[in-house]
Amino acid sequence: MAKVGVVLAGCGVYDGSEIHESVITLLALDRADAEIVCMAPNAEQLHVVNHLTGEVAEGESRNILVESARIARGNIKDIATVSAADLDALVIPGGFGAAKNLCDFAVNGPDCQVNPEVSRLVMEVVDAKKPLAAICISPAVIARILGQAGKSPQVTIGNDSGTAEAINAMGAQHVNKAVEEFVVDENLNILTTPAYMLAGSIKEAADGIEATITALMARL
Amino acid sequence: MAKVGVVLAGCGVYDGSEIHESVITLLALDRADAEIVCMAPNAEQLHVVNHLTGEVAEGESRNILVESARIARGNIKDIATVSAADLDALVIPGGFGAAKNLCDFAVNGPDCQVNPEVSRLVMEVVDAKKPLAAICISPAVIARILGQAGKSPQVTIGNDSGTAEAINAMGAQHVNKAVEEFVVDENLNILTTPAYMLAGSIKEAADGIEATITALMARL
Repeated sequence: MAKVGVVLAGCGVYDGSEIHESVITLLALDRADAEIVCMAPNAEQLHVVNHLTGEVAEGESRNILVESARIARGNIKDIATVSAADLDALVIPGGFGAAKNLCDFAVNGPDCQVNPEVSRLVMEVVDAKKPLAAICISPAVIARILGQAGKSPQVTIGNDSGTAEAINAMGAQHVNKAVEEFVVDENLNILTTPAYMLAGSIKEAADGIEATITALMARL
Repeated sequence: MAKVGVVLAGCGVYDGSEIHESVITLLALDRADAEIVCMAPNAEQLHVVNHLTGEVAEGESRNILVESARIARGNIKDIATVSAADLDALVIPGGFGAAKNLCDFAVNGPDCQVNPEVSRLVMEVVDAKKPLAAICISPAVIARILGQAGKSPQVTIGNDSGTAEAINAMGAQHVNKAVEEFVVDENLNILTTPAYMLAGSIKEAADGIEATITALMARL
């Protein structure tokens, strides 16, 4: 049974992992008979967003690992305790948490810093030539990690030109794709799909994510 | 396009709506071309549970509607503003939130009280003979509402004997079912499925929920 890591970044599209993308990923992996290893950084979120109003909840703080445990039903590890040797593949769902908690791309754009444990694990997986899938905005995290390592992954976040330019500025090569499509970087064994960067509804996000997970599992 | 209400109760299995069940419900409805109307009570949760440790987070409070908005990506209504005339069908996913926030079954068992807006909307839907699906533990809410109205719905929460006895004590008729199955009360137009009351993994919960939503949509 293949062991597939899923990196979460909180619980909710505006300050954590996008919940639909995360659950669709878990379901697709379970239906592909993968053993799922959920993980998240044990650190404070950048902030808490009230998802009813869209505004920052001043004075509130939440822990990324504790909130991610909601999506994982409590079955989750501190990413600092996981190495690529424990896994056959890795998936990073999207949501603003990928750009706020796994790195600070949402604040600093192409000059962003990446959480060191996220960076370490991604580099271990890529160096081991194990497949990695990044969904929605999380290809920005991959672009920054690999760009700083002198690699130039081919990725997609859909067709948003500003984000695509930022991804290219970090050393990656952005390719425009539709919501149901995904890009495969054959050399680096990295798959990316736009999901809610483009999706107008949950089924559109699901079509692209399910296709990506199927392709990921076929590479094991 | 059929309009289907989805009643949420927070965000997370231990103090809110079960996230996997909620997302699987939304995806199945979208794939059935339903227009989805998410809603939740605008009230404080019973409590906040740290989903990493399973313990109550003392001193923390969260609002049911605000947390449910995480699952709904912000597109959610106060249940007090929704009537059965706005809907063609209603679905209530599970999670402890159904038994802690929609009613207090988790605390008071068969003597529980139901949130008055939840009770009002469920009675409106049942009186209008529109189909209603309840997932996981949420059939307990239905049993209490309809039992107090002198009706005796046939429902399932799987095969947990203690919960089944409590449901019968509220005036409903519990039927044991496997995780991939569902019960239809033809007279009251109510469908119920065990999901995580029995599921060992997300795909098991999904099989039952998807079958239930397909059957719900076929009744429109």
